[in-house]
Amino acid sequence: MSTRNLTMMTDLYQLTMMYGYYKNGMSKNIAVFDVFFRRSIQDSRYAVVAGLEQLIEYIENLSFESDDIEYLRSLDLFDEEFLSVLEHFSFTGEIYAMPEGSVAYPYEPLIRVKAPVMEAQLVETAILNIVNHQTLIATKASRVVYAAGDTSVFEFGLRRAQGPDAGIYGARAAIIGGCNGTSNVLTGQMYDVPVKGTHSHSWVMSFPTELDAFRAYAELYPDNCLLLVDTYDTLRSGMPNAIQVFKELKAAGHEPVGIRLDSGDLAYLSKKARQMMDEAGFPNAKVFATNDLDEHSIYDLRSQGAAIDVWGVGTRLITSENNPALGGVYKLAAEEINGEMIPRIKISENEEKITLPGIKQVYRLYGSDGMAVADYIALDEETVDTAKPLTIFDPRAPWKRMTLTDFTAKPLLVPVFVDGKCCYDLPTLSEIKEYAASQLNTFWEEYRRLNVPHIYKVDYSQKLYDLRARLLEEGRQHS
Amino acid sequence: MSTRNLTMMTDLYQLTMMYGYYKNGMSKNIAVFDVFFRRSIQDSRYAVVAGLEQLIEYIENLSFESDDIEYLRSLDLFDEEFLSVLEHFSFTGEIYAMPEGSVAYPYEPLIRVKAPVMEAQLVETAILNIVNHQTLIATKASRVVYAAGDTSVFEFGLRRAQGPDAGIYGARAAIIGGCNGTSNVLTGQMYDVPVKGTHSHSWVMSFPTELDAFRAYAELYPDNCLLLVDTYDTLRSGMPNAIQVFKELKAAGHEPVGIRLDSGDLAYLSKKARQMMDEAGFPNAKVFATNDLDEHSIYDLRSQGAAIDVWGVGTRLITSENNPALGGVYKLAAEEINGEMIPRIKISENEEKITLPGIKQVYRLYGSDGMAVADYIALDEETVDTAKPLTIFDPRAPWKRMTLTDFTAKPLLVPVFVDGKCCYDLPTLSEIKEYAASQLNTFWEEYRRLNVPHIYKVDYSQKLYDLRARLLEEGRQHS
Repeated sequence: MSTRNLTMMTDLYQLTMMYGYYKNGMSKNIAVFDVFFRRSIQDSRYAVVAGLEQLIEYIENLSFESDDIEYLRSLDLFDEEFLSVLEHFSFTGEIYAMPEGSVAYPYEPLIRVKAPVMEAQLVETAILNIVNHQTLIATKASRVVYAAGDTSVFEFGLRRAQGPDAGIYGARAAIIGGCNGTSNVLTGQMYDVPVKGTHSHSWVMSFPTELDAFRAYAELYPDNCLLLVDTYDTLRSGMPNAIQVFKELKAAGHEPVGIRLDSGDLAYLSKKARQMMDEAGFPNAKVFATNDLDEHSIYDLRSQGAAIDVWGVGTRLITSENNPALGGVYKLAAEEINGEMIPRIKISENEEKITLPGIKQVYRLYGSDGMAVADYIALDEETVDTAKPLTIFDPRAPWKRMTLTDFTAKPLLVPVFVDGKCCYDLPTLSEIKEYAASQLNTFWEEYRRLNVPHIYKVDYSQKLYDLRARLLEEGRQHS
Repeated sequence: MSTRNLTMMTDLYQLTMMYGYYKNGMSKNIAVFDVFFRRSIQDSRYAVVAGLEQLIEYIENLSFESDDIEYLRSLDLFDEEFLSVLEHFSFTGEIYAMPEGSVAYPYEPLIRVKAPVMEAQLVETAILNIVNHQTLIATKASRVVYAAGDTSVFEFGLRRAQGPDAGIYGARAAIIGGCNGTSNVLTGQMYDVPVKGTHSHSWVMSFPTELDAFRAYAELYPDNCLLLVDTYDTLRSGMPNAIQVFKELKAAGHEPVGIRLDSGDLAYLSKKARQMMDEAGFPNAKVFATNDLDEHSIYDLRSQGAAIDVWGVGTRLITSENNPALGGVYKLAAEEINGEMIPRIKISENEEKITLPGIKQVYRLYGSDGMAVADYIALDEETVDTAKPLTIFDPRAPWKRMTLTDFTAKPLLVPVFVDGKCCYDLPTLSEIKEYAASQLNTFWEEYRRLNVPHIYKVDYSQKLYDLRARLLEEGRQHS
């Protein structure tokens, strides 16, 4: 899987523009593009960045095969000279990116690509595809995990994912967002993460009685016995049969894992199931719940005292159902013209579509307690001197100022490719998961709550603010 | 890509159940599972079936590699005997399916798998993943294309798709649903469908002036010149510059393609752009529109007289944004016990979760005008004799009866695998697209409209109705 060549997975207009730059002698001009999003999903303001590992694989595998060239020739859009340039195409540029598991806010560059415009253009589509998808699911998962508090969340959505990759990499992203494991065996194998699963209703239906089905399962997995109790009637059949089998297990020296609920009112049924297991002497047996869950239903169920220990979350996580796309974009920030880097801005009548010009770095500013205070987007040429007080201001209301002392500043963009070579050590998925958790923990609860979270400050350096204002003014004169 | 092995892309519980069937001596028992959905997306009642080609590839590539076995061994869930059975695993069963492009309704089996329970269980997850995804997008696309009427629709969503496959196969499904092409070069290459694209805002920004950028593009593609006019100011800059370049093209003997709008009020701007091009002598130049479109915005824009000829639809199509999952399920319908096929039903307190028992075929009944009148789900052992009148009834209101004479009946499920061998000739994607259009055309407009479409009849044969009633009654006694 890791050697999959996705070079042709691009929008046709990237190729027609590449051809245009080539024919106009501009193909070697250096361009700088930023990947950023304008708003995160739903009510979330932050996003948990994911997908860098697959982005790296994509860049490293970039090359046009001979049948790709053949196909492009058949389109009658390109000349032979250009096609032979493609035959020798590889990525020679520079990529900076936020490590996976980083917490990002709107308008912050998650990824910065600096390369000959022809290369920078080709990779736009796949980079957005990969990073939009995984960041979307990691962010959604972080919300679900937040709602679950000290209970566990597993990703169970493969069958409803938007195709194989959405299942495989969606599960990967869900782990980054904080899930404890997945039902997806392939993701478990590829990324060494816990896989989870028990049995379905059809297992129960394949035996003469529910008790037979439970006994057969318990015999198979005496130390891993989790029984689905709602095939016929949860409280009158499933729970008594499960408890019967748990008693048999206990007599044989085994500890049952618990029961799974997949229908009905989960608040009511979980409390009843808990009570029945407690009374039967199984206070450690757990209640698993599945059935169209998401962060809101989990939050509600928990606030109603549902006695659920583990949540299996499917469709609504793996598709980010109520907001199934992160609108990450890839915008020109600077261009080299006659050897000089010229910052670029995209002006729009729609204020929120105006871009941030120039080559930038994002700093996270932490207070002396280690908690994040604000993010600070500066030009790459600037440095943040933490020995001196730093006054930051709200770029939409510049009179709102705050001066920081006794703070630290961490640059969020790190080098990933330099001169076309990867210089980034890939962490394991469990390291990324831990990193994401540690990053989320530097944000106060107020920034993370599900509904109407507090607005985290993302400020611009004075230089960036001034540059933007100047280019906006020049652009206004231009049009 | 076609040789990708997705055998491990399954839910862990399929493997634990397979192990259970194996250890209980049941692994060779024949089971029959149906794939069906309970409701289609949003207000649509029908779905356009897609994904069969990838399902076939999946089944044909099924095999556990040695590192898969190694990984499964590491889970400590299975014994060596079972692992060696997996090492020699292949699919030996039978699959019937509706051809891609078929129009299906709730509760109709789209796919019927009959195989030793161990095999039938393994393939559940991937079959649902593939068919749920592509059917979702094909259905969404058919709604968008319906809204577009006699104008054209292109799929432009790759950068917002949920990962590479969602982009690649989503574009494939969008073509099945009626799109005229895609921006996705890889899908164009894999399935020989038209690819489309022009240039982006960054192209315009890379030249000293918009006019320079347009001229450069026109020089490159004099016979394929489509210009994006909203980088600076659509009506005061983009349109006049485009018309200037169109005049230069015309003087050189070329016909311009048209302009693309990507922001602002598309109704207003398209009418103005149309008028400007008409007045300048370019009545054949077309107006393309992109920007967060879906079936509802296209329908509204058209009803407001927007002068748009071609729609490029992105995020909301490729993710089916307001309903990003089709809830297709895979349910046990029959089991062979001691050599006899026993129909099975899944009973639920939730009436809509009750399944249809037995091995079934779906017939589409057509009137003498060739239009679809009703679907008729019967047991596979039944035949429909079109020489005699057929009385059908609403299974939820059995007193509502209708007698058909002068009708034809077409079985929708066709053999795809027999004894593990594929016996199905794969049509090309353009054949599937044509088939889908021809099928949709057998449904009156009333069944296809976007909001509150008329309810198309899906009736059961008397035998199926009676079987279901009997098993429900027996099940009630069971619990």
